[in-house]
Amino acid sequence: MKTVAAPKARVSDSSVRRLSRYHRILEDLENQGCEVVSSARLAELAGTNPAQIRKDLSYFGAFGKRGSGYRVHELRARILEILGLTRSWKVVLVGAGNLGHAIFSYKEFTRYGFHIVAILDTDPSKIGQAWEGIRIRPLDGCEEVLAATGAELAVIATPAAAAQAVVDRMAKAGIRGVLNFAPREVEVPRKVALRTVNITIELEGLTFDLRGRNEG
Amino acid sequence: MKTVAAPKARVSDSSVRRLSRYHRILEDLENQGCEVVSSARLAELAGTNPAQIRKDLSYFGAFGKRGSGYRVHELRARILEILGLTRSWKVVLVGAGNLGHAIFSYKEFTRYGFHIVAILDTDPSKIGQAWEGIRIRPLDGCEEVLAATGAELAVIATPAAAAQAVVDRMAKAGIRGVLNFAPREVEVPRKVALRTVNITIELEGLTFDLRGRNEG
Repeated sequence: MKTVAAPKARVSDSSVRRLSRYHRILEDLENQGCEVVSSARLAELAGTNPAQIRKDLSYFGAFGKRGSGYRVHELRARILEILGLTRSWKVVLVGAGNLGHAIFSYKEFTRYGFHIVAILDTDPSKIGQAWEGIRIRPLDGCEEVLAATGAELAVIATPAAAAQAVVDRMAKAGIRGVLNFAPREVEVPRKVALRTVNITIELEGLTFDLRGRNEG
Repeated sequence: MKTVAAPKARVSDSSVRRLSRYHRILEDLENQGCEVVSSARLAELAGTNPAQIRKDLSYFGAFGKRGSGYRVHELRARILEILGLTRSWKVVLVGAGNLGHAIFSYKEFTRYGFHIVAILDTDPSKIGQAWEGIRIRPLDGCEEVLAATGAELAVIATPAAAAQAVVDRMAKAGIRGVLNFAPREVEVPRKVALRTVNITIELEGLTFDLRGRNEG
């Protein structure tokens, strides 16, 4: 198997998000039987420009020849490697409330190799229930749960007030990556990867755009 | 009221996200009675550096004097203006499933001036139910709902297959901004603002980071 070069410089979150988007577009193109796509067409589908695509890929070595387009299958395979998606990842969900249930029900994950293997909560009325055969366990046993399941990623869907303590605990128990949906910033040890989804901040992105348009 | 200069150049999504983060930090500092904060301390709290803060703010004109720190209340007020948060925004939620309910229950919105004023769905078993006094209405009546409520933003929490048709319909009905949670990309007319939250793509950001660490 070919390996992709380690990135030469820090890759921005925006570049990583665009790589995920290119991957989805290439997947669609491949499903449609398309073998080669021009950089102009790929850029159009991704809502960007060919120079940006070249730049996003340039962190990881050379891809294709200028002017000859991208080979769909090959580029897709290499982006999968770049994104760490050539293997599957086990995920523990912390927080079995509305948001936790919505995330659990979001089947899109599985297609890309993410599998929720455990659910944790502190609410005695929820512990012992099962969602699609996965029993909700007490947060207090998280060390054993991680050891038994091999989960490496945690999705945090707790209330704001609980989030930091939960993340501290999961970090201590050896989690490698945290996706935080709780509406507060959390801190993680340097060795733990962190992404945050804050719905209000996304809404603020919209109102920023609209404010600009009012005054434009 | 002072007005904030219109941005001189295209402001990146990352900059806008950082502005939201600075705003939250300044709010905490103000609540703690802090009047002036050094750029070094603000940067530390935001997990960035002073040059990045200066750059993020520089799009909107001059803020403070170099070396004298930022006046907390004033900077916070100006960031609120930049983000379009000196007014409130009415939001229509489309999709009354698990995810829609989780978003509806996410009270953090309200603090920043976002109010869900209407809920739409196509499922006859849901239409007519009410969440905290807000009746779930048929998507088919969305034009009247927008006109009656004055909602300008839509949060899309439908299944993937329905998302584009819903967005087209809302755009036609005059929505100004769309926050899309459905697990597929949607297109909007140029005049409509769009942000997308894709949970799988956020997980891919984590696995990208971890892959880099394995090989680093």
